[in-house]
Amino acid sequence: MTKEQLIQEIKTKRSFLCVGLDTDLAKIPKHLLDCEDPIFEFNKQIIDATKDFCVAYKPNIAFYECHGSKGWDSLKKTIDYIPKNIFTIADAKRGDIGNTSSYYAKTFFEYMDFDSVTVAPYMGVDSVTPFLEFEDKWVILLALTSNKGALDFQMTTDAKGERLFEKVIKTSSSWAGDDKLMYVVGATRSEGIGEVRAIAPNHFFLVPGVGAQGGSLEDVTQYGWNEQCGLLVNSSRGIIYAGNDENFGNAAANAAQDLQKQMESILTAKKFI
Amino acid sequence: MTKEQLIQEIKTKRSFLCVGLDTDLAKIPKHLLDCEDPIFEFNKQIIDATKDFCVAYKPNIAFYECHGSKGWDSLKKTIDYIPKNIFTIADAKRGDIGNTSSYYAKTFFEYMDFDSVTVAPYMGVDSVTPFLEFEDKWVILLALTSNKGALDFQMTTDAKGERLFEKVIKTSSSWAGDDKLMYVVGATRSEGIGEVRAIAPNHFFLVPGVGAQGGSLEDVTQYGWNEQCGLLVNSSRGIIYAGNDENFGNAAANAAQDLQKQMESILTAKKFI
Repeated sequence: MTKEQLIQEIKTKRSFLCVGLDTDLAKIPKHLLDCEDPIFEFNKQIIDATKDFCVAYKPNIAFYECHGSKGWDSLKKTIDYIPKNIFTIADAKRGDIGNTSSYYAKTFFEYMDFDSVTVAPYMGVDSVTPFLEFEDKWVILLALTSNKGALDFQMTTDAKGERLFEKVIKTSSSWAGDDKLMYVVGATRSEGIGEVRAIAPNHFFLVPGVGAQGGSLEDVTQYGWNEQCGLLVNSSRGIIYAGNDENFGNAAANAAQDLQKQMESILTAKKFI
Repeated sequence: MTKEQLIQEIKTKRSFLCVGLDTDLAKIPKHLLDCEDPIFEFNKQIIDATKDFCVAYKPNIAFYECHGSKGWDSLKKTIDYIPKNIFTIADAKRGDIGNTSSYYAKTFFEYMDFDSVTVAPYMGVDSVTPFLEFEDKWVILLALTSNKGALDFQMTTDAKGERLFEKVIKTSSSWAGDDKLMYVVGATRSEGIGEVRAIAPNHFFLVPGVGAQGGSLEDVTQYGWNEQCGLLVNSSRGIIYAGNDENFGNAAANAAQDLQKQMESILTAKKFI
């Protein structure tokens, strides 16, 4: 998907919501456990219920690969089921030496037809660039994450006063433009979002941490907005586990629509739509 | 596997060789492609041929997951086939927020019975510690990698003159001891190995980059040796693709034995055996 197509989708849906498909057998409604593929059945109903309110889906790969080959089949069926106008993110946080990263890229861009994959920057340029060689596919590079451990290394200040997450953004911006590269910027560090926006004015940010992790949509928008919207705000548990019985689809739809309505207000106030 | 068991295995085999199972359908002998599961068939024969010369096997997960669920089945069969006295490393370079990392840990330590998994440190403490909660299982944390991109961030010096890889080692050493934690230290930076050894005197290092990537066994041993050996030196392509016809097993055995003999000389010279 191109950047222009993503922006158009945001305008059409009046939403910049990403739904995180962190599908956990221990948390899905019990009646689904009798299905042949409970994970896919859950995802299918969640997608049916939420697809009008979101512009992206983000399965976190950990929740699928813990079931081995069966989990990979559930993931493949899920990505094949998502409508093509919706941006898809393989939240995989991969990264290896160049030759090996190219196999990870093939996994998510060829074997599965994801639009993007999250990548960890620690191993540097040749661990990231193999993902950038696919047309209209994206790297979403970890910059400033939403978890407690982000403080351990990402905030380390170098001799010039630059923090590691800033160096990651500045360095990686020479590897690809904002038509191929986004950054993960956690909602739990709202001032951090502003600092990232200052050095990456044109890139889209994938923002996890709204809802269950404590970040607020208002703060994210205040600090992260750019004139192309520039934000994909993810919610996982708050949407997909909004209900826990046979009506879980309706509950997820309502939770997604609530966020979509808030986003519509913001997009309207910003005169983006 | 415990550290004592690993050290005993090094003494018994007179080797600290790790064989990297980076099994690529484009590179394995053509006659195997008619098998039902060519990747497992190749691995099986490589394991049969090399198991007396090595103390560890390290499948890089990228080479398996690019085949989707079939690749995961090949990987599962491979880990089940490796003799239990041999240390197994899931070279996965995973890492995510705590809840999610615990699913990755379950994947490699429960669904598959690996002894260890490689983990990327960028997301900090809560991305690593879920892997440390499994008895006799290990985290092998990326510290100083063998690739060109290692220069981008790992060598960044902070205001106190400490480089990021040093900070990773010092910080992580409070998360677990050398009975649960190893570091990846690339053979292509032999002086770097010495610097890591100075700050992590007791930890085992997994050392990739000997052979095809240009590192030498002599340099690795000169800089990385400690009194418990403290080294697992990986070779992938140089062993598993030593031959490319029906005798590929013999060729792999010879290549592995060559390295084992060199290691035996070192272990003898060091009076370790």
